[in-house]
Amino acid sequence: MWKINIETKGHTEIVDITDEVQKIVRDSKITNGLCTVYVPHTTAAVTVNENADPSVKNDIIRTLDRLVPWNDRYTHLEGNAAAHIKASIIGSDRTFIIRDGQIVLGTWQGIFFCEFDGPRRRKVYIEIVPGV
Amino acid sequence: MWKINIETKGHTEIVDITDEVQKIVRDSKITNGLCTVYVPHTTAAVTVNENADPSVKNDIIRTLDRLVPWNDRYTHLEGNAAAHIKASIIGSDRTFIIRDGQIVLGTWQGIFFCEFDGPRRRKVYIEIVPGV
Amino acid sequence: MWKINIETKGHTEIVDITDEVQKIVRDSKITNGLCTVYVPHTTAAVTVNENADPSVKNDIIRTLDRLVPWNDRYTHLEGNAAAHIKASIIGSDRTFIIRDGQIVLGTWQGIFFCEFDGPRRRKVYIEIVPGV
Repeated sequence: MWKINIETKGHTEIVDITDEVQKIVRDSKITNGLCTVYVPHTTAAVTVNENADPSVKNDIIRTLDRLVPWNDRYTHLEGNAAAHIKASIIGSDRTFIIRDGQIVLGTWQGIFFCEFDGPRRRKVYIEIVPGV
Repeated sequence: MWKINIETKGHTEIVDITDEVQKIVRDSKITNGLCTVYVPHTTAAVTVNENADPSVKNDIIRTLDRLVPWNDRYTHLEGNAAAHIKASIIGSDRTFIIRDGQIVLGTWQGIFFCEFDGPRRRKVYIEIVPGV
Repeated sequence: MWKINIETKGHTEIVDITDEVQKIVRDSKITNGLCTVYVPHTTAAVTVNENADPSVKNDIIRTLDRLVPWNDRYTHLEGNAAAHIKASIIGSDRTFIIRDGQIVLGTWQGIFFCEFDGPRRRKVYIEIVPGV
């Protein structure tokens, strides 16, 4: 298992972690198989989306804020229920395919850590299992 | 492959299955690798979220009910289209990392079966593949 | 790694790819393990849902359109921000359990490619890792 440390700076923020994940896969010397990226936090998530135009990240953040507003008479006393709900909608894990020692991504795809209740110090765990 | 049986009691219900999944992983004697938790139902799902304050589960249920109301002129004749849609938003599978014979979870994380059209008898399947 | 080619015909479309995925798993001769289905596009996704009544697909499409409308003052200049957002809500990957040389699916479950910005030529990648 490998670990990436992330220090988020905003309350809601989408952070590109593609290079860190690809480096871990490359250094593992495993040429093909599966790679799971796992977020061990309940108010953060991981997604795949466009890495070319940063405005896509803003549109995702703004739409999730509209669908799950910060204040909505939630019962969770900590006050961050919206962040928990967004985490479950986006998801805590993504699994990727490793081919020729690299994660296979589409031309425009990047791997993004989603902070929904920052700023905080966060971790992402990576595990790799070999294929046949 | 392993199986967990769940008997849900409410129409919409989030059930903590962390202990059952961890026991299966422990008994498998596999010390590191990946573990997939799979829900073989089209009106249920699996998520990871906070296990400390049960109000988080209620906030997730209430928000999904607001976003995908039970009655909304759906075309699916069985009358449970909302449950199908929630299942696709939350997802049928989660993949976890196994380390030292245990699924790696964050301090506040639990694994939750999401019933969207109960009460029903449900199953969850577990598969484990070893790492390197 | 295996590949499925898909040519979508509509702007928003949910395409059943269960048979193609099952054939790949069968031909791999791997009897048990995990199978990841990965979509290398930022305006498409993969989900699991009911394959019996096609109206379920329409209800999913219509609800996502209502939650994430095509026009909503997005900042992404290409004009397809809604498709990107839906892709992150549904997800780019699903992981399945292989048992007896087949993906384990519930009675009513099928595997569906979700096109959110078609018509386009699309690909889906499949990777399989053996269990113990």
